[in-house]
Parts: sequence; C-alpha cells; structure tokens
Amino acid sequence: AGNADNFARDRIYAPFSVFKGKAALSVEPVLPTFTKIGAGALKVGRSGTMMMTFVPAIGERKYDFERKQKFALSATEVGSLISMGPKDSSDFFHDPSLKSSNAGQVRKSLSIKPHADGSGYFISLTVVNNILQTNDRVTVPVTTAEFAVLKTACSFALPHIMGWDRLTSPQAKDAEHPAKLKLQRELEWDK
Amino acid sequence: AGNADNFARDRIYAPFSVFKGKAALSVEPVLPTFTKIGAGALKVGRSGTMMMTFVPAIGERKYDFERKQKFALSATEVGSLISMGPKDSSDFFHDPSLKSSNAGQVRKSLSIKPHADGSGYFISLTVVNNILQTNDRVTVPVTTAEFAVLKTACSFALPHIMGWDRLTSPQAKDAEHPAKLKLQRELEWDK
Amino acid sequence: AGNADNFARDRIYAPFSVFKGKAALSVEPVLPTFTKIGAGALKVGRSGTMMMTFVPAIGERKYDFERKQKFALSATEVGSLISMGPKDSSDFFHDPSLKSSNAGQVRKSLSIKPHADGSGYFISLTVVNNILQTNDRVTVPVTTAEFAVLKTACSFALPHIMGWDRLTSPQAKDAEHPAKLKLQRELEWDK
Amino acid sequence: AGNADNFARDRIYAPFSVFKGKAALSVEPVLPTFTKIGAGALKVGRSGTMMMTFVPAIGERKYDFERKQKFALSATEVGSLISMGPKDSSDFFHDPSLKSSNAGQVRKSLSIKPHADGSGYFISLTVVNNILQTNDRVTVPVTTAEFAVLKTACSFALPHIMGWDRLTSPQAKDAEHPAKLKLQRELEWDK
Repeated sequence: AGNADNFARDRIYAPFSVFKGKAALSVEPVLPTFTKIGAGALKVGRSGTMMMTFVPAIGERKYDFERKQKFALSATEVGSLISMGPKDSSDFFHDPSLKSSNAGQVRKSLSIKPHADGSGYFISLTVVNNILQTNDRVTVPVTTAEFAVLKTACSFALPHIMGWDRLTSPQAKDAEHPAKLKLQRELEWDK
Repeated sequence: AGNADNFARDRIYAPFSVFKGKAALSVEPVLPTFTKIGAGALKVGRSGTMMMTFVPAIGERKYDFERKQKFALSATEVGSLISMGPKDSSDFFHDPSLKSSNAGQVRKSLSIKPHADGSGYFISLTVVNNILQTNDRVTVPVTTAEFAVLKTACSFALPHIMGWDRLTSPQAKDAEHPAKLKLQRELEWDK
Repeated sequence: AGNADNFARDRIYAPFSVFKGKAALSVEPVLPTFTKIGAGALKVGRSGTMMMTFVPAIGERKYDFERKQKFALSATEVGSLISMGPKDSSDFFHDPSLKSSNAGQVRKSLSIKPHADGSGYFISLTVVNNILQTNDRVTVPVTTAEFAVLKTACSFALPHIMGWDRLTSPQAKDAEHPAKLKLQRELEWDK
Repeated sequence: AGNADNFARDRIYAPFSVFKGKAALSVEPVLPTFTKIGAGALKVGRSGTMMMTFVPAIGERKYDFERKQKFALSATEVGSLISMGPKDSSDFFHDPSLKSSNAGQVRKSLSIKPHADGSGYFISLTVVNNILQTNDRVTVPVTTAEFAVLKTACSFALPHIMGWDRLTSPQAKDAEHPAKLKLQRELEWDK
C-alpha cells in the first residue's frame, strides 16, 4: 500500500481554467498549513485561500505567463462570491505589502460585474504599483455556466481552505453497563 | 505511514473567527462521541454541536478571554441557521443546568437579527445568571459575506456533527452465478 | 493502526430522530451493497435508501417499539424530498410485497404536507394490510428547522446511497517525455 | 487491511439510471486521470466528465444496447445543468472527431427542455453522422424528482471530475517558539 499512500499525498495540480480572447483565468484552492502545538494537536498556521491567476493573451491562444497576476481570495471573500445573485457585483481590495514598509505602494483590486444581459460576468484584476509606476488591468469574461462551476467548486473548497475537512472524532470507548442497556433499547429503532 | 496516520488523527483547531470592535465570535464544529455497543458496532454517545464562543473586547484588537461565553448549537438549531433568509431572525434558548438542581438559574439566549439595510446580521449572546446575579450581553455584527461563510461551513459540518460522515458500507461479496450473469448484461452500459 | 482501521469500518448508528407527543420519527441512510463482478470491479447490488422509522407514543416520552413501521425512500424519492419548497406536498406509495404472491395486499403511503401557517410539515405513514385487516396511520409534525436538517442531511447522504462516494481514480502514471514538457509549461500557472 | 485497501480502490459501477417507455438514460461520473510530473507532483491528464448513456427501447422493458449512444458532459456543461431553473433549457454540441480528419462529419447535440406543465424535462440526444448517413434521436422524459437527483448528484460529482477532491495539505511542522506562545494564547478560545 506504500505506493498508494504516496499517491494520496502527492501535490495535485487541478486548476479550473477559462481561456478567453484577451486573457485567461485559472482558479485553484490553496489549503491551509497546520502547525503542531503539542502532542496530538494542530492549529491552522497560514490560512487557506482560493488563488486566482490572470494571464494576458499575446496572440491567438497564446498567453504571456511572464505577466501573470495573482489574487488570493480569503474564506470571507469566497463567502461573498458564492452568495452572489445573477445581478450582484463584488469588489475586493488587497495590499500585498500590508504591515511592511511598502504598505500602500501596491494596490490590487478584483472586481466581478454581471453582464448587462445576464449572460455571465466580467472578472477584472487591477494592479496599481506606485513603486514601478505601473497600472495593469486584465479582464476575463465568464459565462453563467462557468460562473456556476466556480460557485459550486468554491462552495466545495470553502470548508477545505478553512481546515474544516480535517475534523476528527474522539476515539470510541466501550459503553459502561447502564448506558449499554439504554443503548440496547434505543437500537430497537434499527431492528 | 505511521506519522501520516497520526497526523490524520490529531486534534485540529480551525475555528472560523470574526474580530469586531466590541467583541469577537469564533465558531467551530464539535464532533459527536461514539460508544461501542458490541463487536463492530458504535452508537452516537454525546451529540455533536456547533460551538460558538463570544469574547468581549477590552481595547483596540484586545479581547478579554476571561469573560468569554459559549453557546453550543444543536443539529436542529444549525438547521434553523442555514435555512435563514436575508430578512429572517432566529432565537435559541439554553439552560446549561437543565436536569440538575440549578435548573432555571442560568439562562442563555442566542439571537440572530438582520441589519435593517440587509447588509448583514447582529449575533448576540445574553447570559442571565441568577446565582451570580449577573446579566451579560455581547453582540457581534457580521457581514453578509461572513454569514455566507457561516452558512456554507455549517451546511458542510451538519452531517459531521450528526455522525453521518461515518457511514459505512457492507463489505463486498463475490457475485453468485445467476446474479453475475445479470450483472454482466447490465455492464453493457459501460462498454 | 489496526484499531483505528476497525473503528473506521464499524457499523455506526446515528439516526436523526424527532420525538413528538403522538409519535417519533427516526431517519437514517442505508448504504448500498456492492457485488464483486470480476477482479477489481464492483457493482451496486441492493440499492441504498433513506430509512424512515415511525414509532407511536404510548405515554409521555414513551414509545411503543413493537408497533414501529418503516418506509425506505429510494434515491428518486429523496430527490423529491430535497427539492420541496415551503408550500409543496409529496406522496410516495410502496408495496413491500411487490413481485410476490402477496402483491397488493399491503400498501404503504408516506405523505409530507406543509402546515397551513408555513411553520413546518406533517409527515404521515399509512399502512393498510389487507391480510391482517389493519389500517395504521402515524403522524409526526416537524418544524421548519427540523425539515432543514432533514433536507441538508438527505442531500449529503444522496450520493452515498447512490454509491457515488465510492468513485475511484485511475492510478497515476509517469508522464511521457513530450507531455512532460507541455505540462511543465502549464505549471507556470503555479509559480 | 490488505483486502479493505483493495476494496477501496476497486472500480465501482454505480450509474444513476432511469428506464422509460422509449429509451433509458444512465448517468455516471468519469474521474480525471492524473499524470506524474515529478517527485510528489501530479497534474490532471484527461479531464473528468459526466457520462450520459442513452439506450433506445425495443419492447417492454427491453433495451437495445447495440444502439446505445454516449455524451460526455464537461465540467462547464455540468455547471450549466446544475444551475438550470424549472423553466430553463440547455443545449450542448459536441464533435467527437474534433481535430481529426473527420472533424465535422459527426455532430452530437444534447438538449434539455422543460415540460410545458413544469412536471419535469425532456432530455434528448441527436447524433448526425454524415459518413454513415445516419440521423439518430433518442429522448428520455425525466420527472422533477429524477432531475433533482441528477442535479444533486452532479453537484456532488463536479469537484471530483475537476480533481478537487484530491486536494492535499502541506505536512505539519513543529511550531517554533514565538509562534507557539502566540498560538497558546489563541487556544484560549477552546478552553
């Protein structure tokens, strides 16, 4: 079973990607890390995220990976996304240098806006970098079906990026005598 | 694989927490315990719950853990929470001393009320303790996005706190002869 | 790990039960059985169901397990239940002796009807037995919150009673050379 | 545990099937394949699909497996299906010979149309084969309950056919000293 065990723990690359004329968008969950805090106890270290990667096109079906931009949705931002109705918009703002000396120098904003005709959404990432004096914006249109995949996949992934898929039960113990009798009676449900 | 096995059974701390100006709220599932009732059979002992912990603030980003209060939502109360619409309220009442000589002396009530403008909810815990002559109330405002995370995470956790994630299948048996023929034919679906 | 493995495969009793004045209702998934149809291949033998057990009351908090009645919802009937809106009704009819010489002699019908004020549902089981000349009817009122638990738990259990939780992947293979190069490039998403 | 391990990795046949007067429809997820791209890393090779198999009837409860037709829904097409409201239609078009010299010679189209009275849907597969000069159409009516099973089962299966059920966590590490202190304090939540 050694091989199978390894297989089960391999790092898997399985992004959900949409390739459009001007850019491509790839979405993939990043699980939290866990830190040991004593014998048999772990705590979430770095929180999990839903990583969105935007890549601008440089020709037909060609994308410029050198210019890709990333935006990591937090659990709460994923909550926003999955509760969006067909006419709702969402805007998220990140400062990748928060709490460093460069705080405020780079601003990232992700915007999700519905098409006027209800046929899908525009997902845009804007990165304003005051140090490099750059202002990049990349937009990917997604259809209603693609957004439904995103919502269902994000709903599935949310408990995982929160670490709730790692819930564990206390071990089983033998029933003491009086409880056992009571339980025996309750089991009549199952006869 | 010994280490990995241990890892899989470690107790994990992964609460969903929101920190606000006057208080913080942390939510985490507590799985049921199981009791052995014979060879190869287990029954739910203590039911699982969704544990909500409230901590009042005592300064900017400082919380007074000495004064934290807990409220354990049952499966049915979780059912109420996850079926709440944007304008719905919920109220739950617990007596932590139920069936003891102190019954009725401490009353806990959890209230979830929508903001008037639909931008989220107020979640309040009131604890009236007639023995200590205290009356504590702590309120945490949560945004629509935070409540969406709570609902999705609680929907995920509900079957776990009910013990339904522990469903097991009867073992496989070799097909007897006549059934095997019939099955063979049905497999034509898959060719 | 031997103990833990056994624990994982023990039969678990974890019904969702509501105890009311005139009767109690207990719901629990019953997984399908699998039949071996060759080396490394299994097929669903007996289909899984959602087992509903009704027990009439014979006094305060006392229930008469001798008179309990069962009704096993199929996957499609579970589909009906989980797609019910707050004003919808459902009726299911079973003949436990179907395809035997007693066909038509016993008729079971399960009825789910909303309360007039939208505060929940009545779930009733009627069993008409022409052989024993009996006609039993037991009704359990369930609140909106209890029905929400039932719907969420049944949605969770549905893929399990269908056997879809047992999906397996083909084993991993080493990438051939050209594919490997292409994949390497695609991995730039993840840098 | 050897046997149990094998059991867990056996290929499982568990289609969701509806048998109707003129044809039968069977739906089953097909998981993606994974390709090793280095030590401890895998990438989705062939994408997963939801395989729909149509079999025309040739008599009462008899189906002609020689004339079965298949249609493999992609993740995005599954997204369309699970976001369909009660009055929505969907149409999908596939060319099984795409990118080969026979491109355009065979056209498959799957259509899902609601009944006029809202009591379910017609699911039709049309296969036009210009090489064999054939034009086959098979239609299966499904009830609202059967479609609810299909949607719930497809929502469950979607993350699996995307490979997202194979998410893995980084391994646990011992907490360094300062972090450990901070974590210790955070654990007060759990006391």
